[in-house]
Amino acid sequence: MMHPRTFRVDYDHVTSVVCVVGSGLNVNLNRSAPPGSEFFSVKSTAIVQYSISPRPRETSHLSPIPLKGNSALLIRMSRASDYENDGKLSIRYYGEKKDVLGRVLLHLTAVEISLDVDADRDGVVEKNNANKGSWKWGSNGHGAILLVNCDSERMLLKVLDSEQDQVSKVSDLKDMSVMVLRTKGPAKLPEGYKLTMHISQGDAESVRVFRDRSSGVESNSLQNLLFNHFVKEYPLVLSNEVLSQEVPYLGGVSEMKFYVEGLRYPDRDFDGLISINLSLLEPISDGLPETPIFTDTAVFRVAPWIMTPNTLQPVEVFVCCTSDNYQFLKGMRNLVTKSGSKLKICHEYMNRGDRWMQDELEFGYIDSPHHRFPVVLDSPRDRGLKDFPYDELLGPDFGYVTRVAQREDVSSLDSFGNLEVSPPVTVNGKNYHLGRILIGVAFPTATTGRNMTKVVQDFLWAQKVQEPVALFSDWLVVGHIDEFMSFVPAPDRKGFRLLLASPDAGYKLFRGLQRDGHGQAKLFEGLKDEEQQTVDEILNDKGLAAQNNYVQSCIDWNRDVLKRELGLDDEDIIDLPILFKLVMEENDNKKAETELRAVAYYPDMVNMIVLGKNLGIPKPFGPKVNGRCALEVEMCSLMEGLGLSCTFIDDFASYHIKLGEVHCGSNVRREPFDFKWWNLEM
Amino acid sequence: MMHPRTFRVDYDHVTSVVCVVGSGLNVNLNRSAPPGSEFFSVKSTAIVQYSISPRPRETSHLSPIPLKGNSALLIRMSRASDYENDGKLSIRYYGEKKDVLGRVLLHLTAVEISLDVDADRDGVVEKNNANKGSWKWGSNGHGAILLVNCDSERMLLKVLDSEQDQVSKVSDLKDMSVMVLRTKGPAKLPEGYKLTMHISQGDAESVRVFRDRSSGVESNSLQNLLFNHFVKEYPLVLSNEVLSQEVPYLGGVSEMKFYVEGLRYPDRDFDGLISINLSLLEPISDGLPETPIFTDTAVFRVAPWIMTPNTLQPVEVFVCCTSDNYQFLKGMRNLVTKSGSKLKICHEYMNRGDRWMQDELEFGYIDSPHHRFPVVLDSPRDRGLKDFPYDELLGPDFGYVTRVAQREDVSSLDSFGNLEVSPPVTVNGKNYHLGRILIGVAFPTATTGRNMTKVVQDFLWAQKVQEPVALFSDWLVVGHIDEFMSFVPAPDRKGFRLLLASPDAGYKLFRGLQRDGHGQAKLFEGLKDEEQQTVDEILNDKGLAAQNNYVQSCIDWNRDVLKRELGLDDEDIIDLPILFKLVMEENDNKKAETELRAVAYYPDMVNMIVLGKNLGIPKPFGPKVNGRCALEVEMCSLMEGLGLSCTFIDDFASYHIKLGEVHCGSNVRREPFDFKWWNLEM
Repeated sequence: MMHPRTFRVDYDHVTSVVCVVGSGLNVNLNRSAPPGSEFFSVKSTAIVQYSISPRPRETSHLSPIPLKGNSALLIRMSRASDYENDGKLSIRYYGEKKDVLGRVLLHLTAVEISLDVDADRDGVVEKNNANKGSWKWGSNGHGAILLVNCDSERMLLKVLDSEQDQVSKVSDLKDMSVMVLRTKGPAKLPEGYKLTMHISQGDAESVRVFRDRSSGVESNSLQNLLFNHFVKEYPLVLSNEVLSQEVPYLGGVSEMKFYVEGLRYPDRDFDGLISINLSLLEPISDGLPETPIFTDTAVFRVAPWIMTPNTLQPVEVFVCCTSDNYQFLKGMRNLVTKSGSKLKICHEYMNRGDRWMQDELEFGYIDSPHHRFPVVLDSPRDRGLKDFPYDELLGPDFGYVTRVAQREDVSSLDSFGNLEVSPPVTVNGKNYHLGRILIGVAFPTATTGRNMTKVVQDFLWAQKVQEPVALFSDWLVVGHIDEFMSFVPAPDRKGFRLLLASPDAGYKLFRGLQRDGHGQAKLFEGLKDEEQQTVDEILNDKGLAAQNNYVQSCIDWNRDVLKRELGLDDEDIIDLPILFKLVMEENDNKKAETELRAVAYYPDMVNMIVLGKNLGIPKPFGPKVNGRCALEVEMCSLMEGLGLSCTFIDDFASYHIKLGEVHCGSNVRREPFDFKWWNLEM
Repeated sequence: MMHPRTFRVDYDHVTSVVCVVGSGLNVNLNRSAPPGSEFFSVKSTAIVQYSISPRPRETSHLSPIPLKGNSALLIRMSRASDYENDGKLSIRYYGEKKDVLGRVLLHLTAVEISLDVDADRDGVVEKNNANKGSWKWGSNGHGAILLVNCDSERMLLKVLDSEQDQVSKVSDLKDMSVMVLRTKGPAKLPEGYKLTMHISQGDAESVRVFRDRSSGVESNSLQNLLFNHFVKEYPLVLSNEVLSQEVPYLGGVSEMKFYVEGLRYPDRDFDGLISINLSLLEPISDGLPETPIFTDTAVFRVAPWIMTPNTLQPVEVFVCCTSDNYQFLKGMRNLVTKSGSKLKICHEYMNRGDRWMQDELEFGYIDSPHHRFPVVLDSPRDRGLKDFPYDELLGPDFGYVTRVAQREDVSSLDSFGNLEVSPPVTVNGKNYHLGRILIGVAFPTATTGRNMTKVVQDFLWAQKVQEPVALFSDWLVVGHIDEFMSFVPAPDRKGFRLLLASPDAGYKLFRGLQRDGHGQAKLFEGLKDEEQQTVDEILNDKGLAAQNNYVQSCIDWNRDVLKRELGLDDEDIIDLPILFKLVMEENDNKKAETELRAVAYYPDMVNMIVLGKNLGIPKPFGPKVNGRCALEVEMCSLMEGLGLSCTFIDDFASYHIKLGEVHCGSNVRREPFDFKWWNLEM
């Protein structure tokens, strides 16, 4: 029950007042008493309920009750009024000799008011949920959910819907959360009373509210609500410009519908929570602001942006077409066809020679009980593909978000080959049902080194539901974590395996070949412009061995972080035989330093595309034994135990020698999680 | 126990490695095995402890054990080494016929490393507290505490210590938190190993670390640590410019002391938590970054700025001297003397005619287990007194903080007569041991109206420990909550009473006077330049009554908020007989609107100064009955029951007619709370 509000009455006046059902009026009887008052009595009509404190000894309130310093009257209304002033209450004050000194007459009008949202998260706005004013995580939690309206209903002169302060199309409404103002009472409110919807200055940056004037009729079917009524008008009620606005009281039993849209994602300075308030205002007199006498509040949380790991089913695969990647495209097309997903090709006019589809963007999605759609996170990398996410992906029910960084803060580590997400994991009893985001940075101890830009990191951390883990990727020339790790689905254990590039596994394999008499088998056979290397030559190269020892120690450092932060055992990890080499590289940091950093020695098989059970793996061009590439044989044998099928794609000339592979050159939009983010226990 | 790190060994090589006591090395035996290996055996010297997994059947590890795909060796060191490489461990690999195929020899050096802080909050840095890496609120909580070094050790060419990247004086050290790096091990680390202290980019805005080179000797007495050793040198280790720096390994059993200073208060974009890390780096080779193989972390929380309610004992009272306030100063001097506190006068050269000492600043303090000092929050109001907080208050152990607002965002509501704090309260079972901050704004439903500027509100909310409550003060011309409310100490109930200005109480009193035959008694007697008013005249003024009805409804609105948010009953509130009047006033908002707003009709007695049991109350110049002012008599009678003594101070000409009173014209620095903020359950 709400706290009753202090209500002042004057004797020898008739006072009219509106009372919201469920709230009360607290009258200080002593304060309003005529001088010399010693007793009082109270009576009322049936719709008005009252109690006196301190509780009088007499059972009948009609006989005068002694007036004390703390005498108070609590008034409530049992139901909504049928007409104005249909409740009456009178107070009489008496002197020492029970002579009447004054009389208070109250005319009361009761209304029911409820600002309703889908606080129980079932996709339907329920009536006056007791928990609508707060937000709690978990399957036993509550609180409504808001999407950032970051798609674009318009295809021509495209603009983010959240950047428009109007509802452009009826289809835009389904990106918003429905909010219903339910009122019950007389045909109209007594003179001067008003309803007002309002938000705080802080929240106004993050939310906008429209009213639906097209329909006053309620329906439980969202589909019906959205599409069957022709949209007449959706006036803007609240925004950054208008923090408070009157909304009409419709009278009788009525429902007024509103649409709420989120404008920004959680970030360093925004926890994602938004309150929308509806107040009943009481008039004072002209020129004076009305007093809010009742406020109902609905709390929303803005849905976070969620990434999708390799273990989720692919929907669409994106690759670039360039003048030199016909072979690669052919391999990809076969693989994608086999996996039953769709291949989308970004042509040269759009990619402008930039083939690194993985690096310019990350696919994710946002989800609510009423609606869900994919959202692309656009990297501040901004090379040839920079317009692709906005110009080609953004559209109806396909959202877009980016973070703007200073040009000089952007490094190769801001490419999204350096942004991945694990499958769901449990770590020391904590369930990460949506996995954990993984990014690559320099060692935390490094005095120089490259980093992922702060605005993007702040954004990722603020989404909360896939708490990020920072790995060490600055040891690589390109500096992306997808150069040394990937996840594949598995039928057993945790439902996946972590694949790690492993020079040790590579050396072990090559030593085995040498021991078995294949020391003269050649890498890079059949490749023009590439000098062939024998197994013996590789094993005899002490420098290369030292370089790979270093690389292994870098990967092992990440292995330890991944084991700890994802709760993995060694049995959850598969080492893939991959060698690296170090090259001198100029430091990003504009200091004229050069540093030794790593690149893959032969196509980096861990940099694969995972489409369900089908893996698209860079063809390694390893030494052949009995006509089969020993690296491919090893790879297949490691993957086949998991029921996975390996397809080796020749990316040597078009990707590998440009320091990327299959994964770098592709991107996959996947099905969202079945698990709902709001059911996470945080 | 920490997760062991993956460690790679090579057969037929001697490998040297440093191992931190308490951590482990995990060796994948299969990965490092020579081709054809089928068995292995392990032996070690006593300081080295190892276990094999899967656990072998044989009890003796000396007889060859079958090598499996997942065979692993976990190595730990039981204690710190006396000299380099004093631990030895060897692994032998055997072929099918138990012929030796290869041998691994490890030379191990063990060190103990601990970055220690006062995580148990007793003022002393303990050894390796298990909880030092996290922060938890409450009396059963843990985690170290940092002060913002916002005082100034320098009196000439004054500058905030936090704006200096050096330790200016030995006395500056006591504002910082001590951190000790304890190490135990051989005289020096093996070649290439290093210790590095480091912080994240985000934390670097908020913290600075100095090393103490003056002393390597530990002492448990902070006093001793700080003053008895002559300060030689305090080099800067970490700052916004240097995120990572090597610190020397001293050898043997040693302790290195550091001083940590906070640079910024919690705010909208800073939760107050800071991590400082100490890592052991392992060398790889020249030109490659060393690998962090062990990291110890200490977490600090920056102490919040805390306000002091009227119920705390006064220390110093501040007032301005102006050309016209001799009478007021005399009254204040007597009162302050009676209360046993000190009167501090701000002279005209400094106040430049600005008498509103309450409004330019708010006294508070910051507290930690090792040190505590007052901190003045300087308002963005910036009138004549604007330089007073910085120029006169800031000094050694007197801190300063401000928030800079856009000139056009600053209104009268940014004066700190509009910023108060309640005594400790309990609300629905939640304990606010430090009370709750109170500010005044416009109605949340208002479409226009004045507000406290956002940067100050953000600051206040971010301190967390005195969760703010927004009241409605925009109905007043000056717009400060101290115009209608105050708190006084009380011996019973919750330890205090909330005093509220009450026109109803005023009218009740005047009506009683009229009834008792004093209708011709006069207000404002003895004041020149002020027209006298009789009780009858006031009661006959219908317009004034209507205005006061409005004022009462505004105050009642606040009363309801205060009851709800502070958990008060009507019995915790005392209504003071004070009338207001409305005047036309130009709106701050530059729109050419005028609005009706309220000012006190006679000196506003609630705007008092509270010094222990002594109240300094604006002399109301009310109607006299039997030679005594009826308002003073009523006030005294209300306060005397609480054991409080009323002193009425004539502020009419010098403050009241300029729309302020005693409280507006004074400020009080008070004793801090006994309760420690870190013991709050949040």
